[in-house]
Amino acid sequence: MTLEATPVLLVDRDILDHNIARLVASARERGLAVRPHVKTHKCIEIARRQLDAGAQGLTVATVSEAEVFAGAGFDDIFVAYPLWVDAARGARLRALTERARVAAGIDSAEVARALAAHAGTDVGVLVEVDSGHHRTGVAPEQAGAVAAAARAAGLEVFGVFTFPGHSYGPGVTPVAAKEEADALGVAAAALREVGIEPAVISGGSSPTAFLDVPTAATELRPGVYVFGDAQQLELGAVTEADIALTALATVVSARGEVVVLDTGSKVLGADRAPWASGYGRILGEPDARITALSEHHATVQWPSAPTRPGLGERVRVIPNHVCNAVNLADGLIVISGDPVGDDAVVDRWTVAARGCNS
Amino acid sequence: MTLEATPVLLVDRDILDHNIARLVASARERGLAVRPHVKTHKCIEIARRQLDAGAQGLTVATVSEAEVFAGAGFDDIFVAYPLWVDAARGARLRALTERARVAAGIDSAEVARALAAHAGTDVGVLVEVDSGHHRTGVAPEQAGAVAAAARAAGLEVFGVFTFPGHSYGPGVTPVAAKEEADALGVAAAALREVGIEPAVISGGSSPTAFLDVPTAATELRPGVYVFGDAQQLELGAVTEADIALTALATVVSARGEVVVLDTGSKVLGADRAPWASGYGRILGEPDARITALSEHHATVQWPSAPTRPGLGERVRVIPNHVCNAVNLADGLIVISGDPVGDDAVVDRWTVAARGCNS
Repeated sequence: MTLEATPVLLVDRDILDHNIARLVASARERGLAVRPHVKTHKCIEIARRQLDAGAQGLTVATVSEAEVFAGAGFDDIFVAYPLWVDAARGARLRALTERARVAAGIDSAEVARALAAHAGTDVGVLVEVDSGHHRTGVAPEQAGAVAAAARAAGLEVFGVFTFPGHSYGPGVTPVAAKEEADALGVAAAALREVGIEPAVISGGSSPTAFLDVPTAATELRPGVYVFGDAQQLELGAVTEADIALTALATVVSARGEVVVLDTGSKVLGADRAPWASGYGRILGEPDARITALSEHHATVQWPSAPTRPGLGERVRVIPNHVCNAVNLADGLIVISGDPVGDDAVVDRWTVAARGCNS
Repeated sequence: MTLEATPVLLVDRDILDHNIARLVASARERGLAVRPHVKTHKCIEIARRQLDAGAQGLTVATVSEAEVFAGAGFDDIFVAYPLWVDAARGARLRALTERARVAAGIDSAEVARALAAHAGTDVGVLVEVDSGHHRTGVAPEQAGAVAAAARAAGLEVFGVFTFPGHSYGPGVTPVAAKEEADALGVAAAALREVGIEPAVISGGSSPTAFLDVPTAATELRPGVYVFGDAQQLELGAVTEADIALTALATVVSARGEVVVLDTGSKVLGADRAPWASGYGRILGEPDARITALSEHHATVQWPSAPTRPGLGERVRVIPNHVCNAVNLADGLIVISGDPVGDDAVVDRWTVAARGCNS
């Protein structure tokens, strides 16, 4: 196989496998199960590697993602999202429960009742609680009321979950991890107060997944950890040696200290957190800054003259948010070993659940 | 046909056709040709409507986009990008020139020589000049030297082009339009100084496309104008009545003034300019603000209680940057007439060039 024309996404299989094994080992030490979020990679091959390494099931964000993975034989899937279920989506969920053990998120009695009414009661539920991210989820102390409503609608309540998305910021990760643990503890107690013993107490974001904080959690659901990305790098959650996915780019224009790459927001995604240093990072070049990103151009301020690439040379870009980068690609080129070149290409994986949003 | 499960992108065909006709009429009044940038929509059906309305050819960003449109029978294509051409890309360009009149951008002698060496001399070239956006392109007065180098390499120089990307900012559009016109004038003169009469002097972004400024330009290449988006709306380049593309979303969670929609960055794109009011706008609800965007959630601050939607209700979201939203979707649902519902669906168009980045 040969490296395709740039831009193209490369996955380093050796680093990927290391990241997958490392999380399972870390979780086991703490007595936690791993249910990785496959929205990050959307690839059958990577989900298989995660299960082979010891993950106990998959997390997805949408019913259509669940359909792709159930269709490939995965039989334990949690849709970590407060699905609004109408007749059409209910029929799809019923079909899913014939192939897999399926659970879904709920964060209100109404969502639970709509789920039961249209999807039936073979879908288990976990109550989503807000641990500080303030997106979806009820306050932890309200989890019991929602769980009781779900039970009244005939649904089996598996437990509670949260996503500590507020862990994404410089210096705030340990605080968010503590708030996550506290919220899960309060929510689990709230379920017990209404007579429901939570079998699953689920948390975990990639920034917090490796932190050893006292927690009531029974499982972790990180996604990004398989690849790492520039956000995780700048948060200190990973080092460059942990980065398994990069975009291979070519210099198409150059002037002075500035080089322009053929890798824009249609490859990397347009994500840029307020605290980010730019629109991604250049692998192996910590002082370079991606100062602007168009659909097909990355403008890079590259101060080091000795390493600055010339027209036609290739460099590797670390996306800010790898989940959105992967969702732009139809496939990933898999490499193993150094140097990166045609001889390093060992496989091509399809992004099977690309664009599965509904 | 029925409206699919949300989230899904809707195109209002009546507004689309109005936008397409309006640009051609405006350009004709000023004696300008129109060569729309199809990276915005990537749809064969929309490109046909643009040509039927009077556009004289297409603009694309990549060779793979050109391949999709040439494969559908379009025979006059400009790749408005300083392509780095190696043997593989050169072979693809040679194949393209057998089906279509093809031109490409150059912004250095090296880029021109690589193009001639690998793609041959059937590809025409336009020299890209920097009119203030500071991305790719040479200074306007250097256009003659690059053109002469291209001619020396055996290439036919069609003319010059620029993209005034610095027109994207509140209050700066008229200044950028003037700089664009000035740069094109200087660049055209620079070509004449080396004995090349520019047949094409090409400019135009969607914010500047309708501005009547004195210019040497012969053609316009806007893309976004077909759909409009929240950026154009907030820049004052369009009104809500001109918005032809929206994402249909469902409320999945609600608390107080906040509603959460099932439409995140994997549907809308993560674009947010520093001057944007949020991560997109809600159609018909100018006071609502999308304050946060995750992959599958839009968090909306919705102050108006009478119009605030409840769980399960549907709303339409205007993406910030429509080009990136379209590139996330496999297809667009085409609607005509009010109200938006199953009866309004008249067609489904495939995003034929989705993900064509190389």
